[in-house]
Amino acid sequence: MNTKNIKAYGTEAPDANLKPLDIKRREVTINDVEIDILYCGVCHSDLHFARNDWGMTQYPVVPGHEIVGKVLNVGASVKHIKVGDLVAVGCLVDSCRTCNNCKNDLEQYCPEWVGTYGGYDKHLDTNTHGGYSETIVVEEAFVLSIPENLDLAGIAPVLCAGITTWSPLRHWKVGKDSKVAVIGLGGLGHMAIKLADALGAHVTLFSRTSNKIQDGLDLGADQVIISTDETQMERVMGNFDIIIDTVPYEHDLNPYIGTLNTNGTLVVVGYLGPLDPMLVTVPMIMGRKSVAGSLIGGIAETQELLDFCGKHNITSDIELINIQDINQAYQRMLKSDVHYRFVIDMKSLKS
Amino acid sequence: MNTKNIKAYGTEAPDANLKPLDIKRREVTINDVEIDILYCGVCHSDLHFARNDWGMTQYPVVPGHEIVGKVLNVGASVKHIKVGDLVAVGCLVDSCRTCNNCKNDLEQYCPEWVGTYGGYDKHLDTNTHGGYSETIVVEEAFVLSIPENLDLAGIAPVLCAGITTWSPLRHWKVGKDSKVAVIGLGGLGHMAIKLADALGAHVTLFSRTSNKIQDGLDLGADQVIISTDETQMERVMGNFDIIIDTVPYEHDLNPYIGTLNTNGTLVVVGYLGPLDPMLVTVPMIMGRKSVAGSLIGGIAETQELLDFCGKHNITSDIELINIQDINQAYQRMLKSDVHYRFVIDMKSLKS
Repeated sequence: MNTKNIKAYGTEAPDANLKPLDIKRREVTINDVEIDILYCGVCHSDLHFARNDWGMTQYPVVPGHEIVGKVLNVGASVKHIKVGDLVAVGCLVDSCRTCNNCKNDLEQYCPEWVGTYGGYDKHLDTNTHGGYSETIVVEEAFVLSIPENLDLAGIAPVLCAGITTWSPLRHWKVGKDSKVAVIGLGGLGHMAIKLADALGAHVTLFSRTSNKIQDGLDLGADQVIISTDETQMERVMGNFDIIIDTVPYEHDLNPYIGTLNTNGTLVVVGYLGPLDPMLVTVPMIMGRKSVAGSLIGGIAETQELLDFCGKHNITSDIELINIQDINQAYQRMLKSDVHYRFVIDMKSLKS
Repeated sequence: MNTKNIKAYGTEAPDANLKPLDIKRREVTINDVEIDILYCGVCHSDLHFARNDWGMTQYPVVPGHEIVGKVLNVGASVKHIKVGDLVAVGCLVDSCRTCNNCKNDLEQYCPEWVGTYGGYDKHLDTNTHGGYSETIVVEEAFVLSIPENLDLAGIAPVLCAGITTWSPLRHWKVGKDSKVAVIGLGGLGHMAIKLADALGAHVTLFSRTSNKIQDGLDLGADQVIISTDETQMERVMGNFDIIIDTVPYEHDLNPYIGTLNTNGTLVVVGYLGPLDPMLVTVPMIMGRKSVAGSLIGGIAETQELLDFCGKHNITSDIELINIQDINQAYQRMLKSDVHYRFVIDMKSLKS
């Protein structure tokens, strides 16, 4: 297979800083789209993966799965995308296309889905490499169109932080007058608030501290409940149809279960670990309440979200950085010091 | 309020055997139905409540919420029930009638629902007393009609064991070709198998030991998976749309989560306690899987179930006992030595 060398940023060891790397991209094949990457969002998963926090990383790693760019080249069979189009790539670049999940537009649950980085690149027999790079080559089926009216950098986080919260909002049928709560105000949480608000829901932000009240309201929340204040928690008992839990570390779900309405669901989208302390079943049984998990979203659903963002003029609130600042950005992310997503201006890699 | 004394069986202390007690019943008021109790099923909750296992029992206790009987008398405003009718009473005898749950036929989730025993009897300012008694007086709105074609004693467990499994099967839309699994083969489990089978589902019983295989198949299961056999568990990974978990004691849910299909739900109906060991979120997130609780069912739904049982000729498999044998029956229940529900022939109390 013909390849070309391009510039990227990545790491070769869990304890090493990210640095410039040369990687290979395939030349476009018949169904491929080659994209000049303009912006790439910085997701917490990038950091976890670079540092092998999940024990599955193969090095070198080039992170980045919130990719916005412009089409450089297309394969002969590419139908809907042409050179010069503004496009996006999210967390997936391939799946089996034949299982029930793929047939039902749930590629994210395909047992063989290929992550944009850290997956298996069947073309090059290497790891897939993500968006901290000059260009990427992706099959048309996994390339998304982006609305013309939106800020390009602000779109990037929609591809992961956005779809991760959109998918459960849609699956659990949030709409006008739904009562939605969001736990945590980071990259995911701030998108959850914007999207639930735009869907017409009554939106509550749960926050541990009062210093996020104004931010929550500014983003579209109707109220902010301080979760450490028992009186405030008592006030929202039995209240919510759905809670989107974006908190990425171990925390107690039981107090939030009490705030679900009959038939309510708490959806964990942020935390990959055991639910400690243990869930208590009585309040779940006494109100037919559920705890669920949800993973990003499928390709069609991600396109639906991008179109929805275009219609409602929604982008992520971001801080634009140069690729050379990525290690410092990771340090700040570990301290939750970002409002609400870093996005890399990829010009900085090319200059 | 006018009352009459009747014979019952109950207990005055958590460590005492059940014995004959005299209790009061109100004379029928305008909306009431007085029922001569013919049969009463023996539920695990009866035992828990008699022994104050849940720390909320007020004594004396007269258990029993799987009641089948014949109408003795009706109040002036009773519309749909007449003297001589065969009727049933389940776990609820009252609710607020005005909250959203009540308005949506979900009386079991009304914060003010009144249990058939151990609730607050607003008429007599005492505890409500259940079906281990000669008669019961219940408002028409909580009295159910029973199909004429069914064995009366076998209907009794439908009122709790049946509806507890029916309600989640219906809420999660089980029908033809649904893939349903049932954990545990007791009073609830055996009804879950019969009902899911009659709904047209493909039914799997999970059992810890191989000695229940033939019983499971005889009840309508299409297969029995031995949950302690890793090879068998591997064979059903990603398989089930819904799992009805009837196990009444602490157990590990994680192996079962793996057997859910994308969007699958494990519904806990049997265990009132913390989920120990802890649930691991990764498999839930990686397949949009849920863990839910569910409590008995509403009045309309219980009537729907009784009608369904009539149409499909479904009753519980029971062992008929005399009320004088109740303490021995409790001992056997603690050893799971019953196929699958004790039902008391209430003639034994009256003679």
